[in-house]
Amino acid sequence: MIMINERLLSQVAFIHEIDKLKYIQRKTRLFNSERSENDAEHSWHLAMMTIVLAEHSNVKVDVLKVLKMVLIHDIVEIDAGDVFLYDTNKMHCNTMAERQAAERIFGLLPKDQFDELTALWEEFEACETAEAKFAKSMDRFEPLLQNVSNDGGTWKEYGVDYSKVYKTQLVIKDGSAAIWDVAKPMLEQTMLKGVFKKAG
Amino acid sequence: MIMINERLLSQVAFIHEIDKLKYIQRKTRLFNSERSENDAEHSWHLAMMTIVLAEHSNVKVDVLKVLKMVLIHDIVEIDAGDVFLYDTNKMHCNTMAERQAAERIFGLLPKDQFDELTALWEEFEACETAEAKFAKSMDRFEPLLQNVSNDGGTWKEYGVDYSKVYKTQLVIKDGSAAIWDVAKPMLEQTMLKGVFKKAG
Repeated sequence: MIMINERLLSQVAFIHEIDKLKYIQRKTRLFNSERSENDAEHSWHLAMMTIVLAEHSNVKVDVLKVLKMVLIHDIVEIDAGDVFLYDTNKMHCNTMAERQAAERIFGLLPKDQFDELTALWEEFEACETAEAKFAKSMDRFEPLLQNVSNDGGTWKEYGVDYSKVYKTQLVIKDGSAAIWDVAKPMLEQTMLKGVFKKAG
Repeated sequence: MIMINERLLSQVAFIHEIDKLKYIQRKTRLFNSERSENDAEHSWHLAMMTIVLAEHSNVKVDVLKVLKMVLIHDIVEIDAGDVFLYDTNKMHCNTMAERQAAERIFGLLPKDQFDELTALWEEFEACETAEAKFAKSMDRFEPLLQNVSNDGGTWKEYGVDYSKVYKTQLVIKDGSAAIWDVAKPMLEQTMLKGVFKKAG
């Protein structure tokens, strides 16, 4: 007699499907590098940052919850694609394409896990809870470090102006004032190199 | 007055350094693909597998601990390189090169975090606790799924014999008998395709 573990097989189908995240290229490049980062590498890096930096969160966070958030936060991009943070022509959060992607991809899982991952992704996007704010600060701080190491990186490449970058990066402060105290001077020093477009 | 947060700066140095994991290529290829996987992608995938499969562990595990283990388990390969699982000419666990790598890379962190990550890596390598056994089963199951999807993948490419693969994959059972019940028939069906070298 062969017993079929349908629950486990649906989980395996999900594990198989999310392999595609390794093909989703971001605009940002690796540290001191010309090579683009993909979403799987990016998500791993945010998870490692969460492990070592969680102690700096403004509010004590549930580290397991933050880890889950950063590990899954870009999975919807398998269908919806990566949207560059400074692209003004596109919607960035919770678009219809992203919602449909969440439905399809998390929908491969058993119902209880579909509910859990969908709720975590929505919580991340809403950016209201302490965990979501900290996860979002990791999602800003990694490309900031990368762009700083690449003499402006995508800020320079796409002609983004300083005030816009500064405003976008302020999200870090909502998650961690201590990290912002380190990030801000990095941003200012990079600004002095003349990598930003003049506003106006 | 400028306050220097040395603890945070040492954590940032670590975050910068581990970017190199994205350049460490494994032998195994992505699902249904010719493209090699790198260690950062692999570690992200094991973390996602841990999230959805932890319920199948033989013994209830601390999911946060398993996540940390799988996220850091290959960081030593930044210095020591990836060793192919079926390479009989090389030592595989806790080599001197790996120990020195752990010392150098985790050593970038503050002492308490150096101690924590080193202990987690050693626990993973020793494979005695429930968390380490489950983490190790994820580390076997992902390449098994990849090789199955690639009609034998590295097993075929490097002429590994079936009995050796079977024995190596039995580690999955130590972490989860339920996952082994799904993995074993996959292995047997791949064997029937004649992808393995005849033992002897």
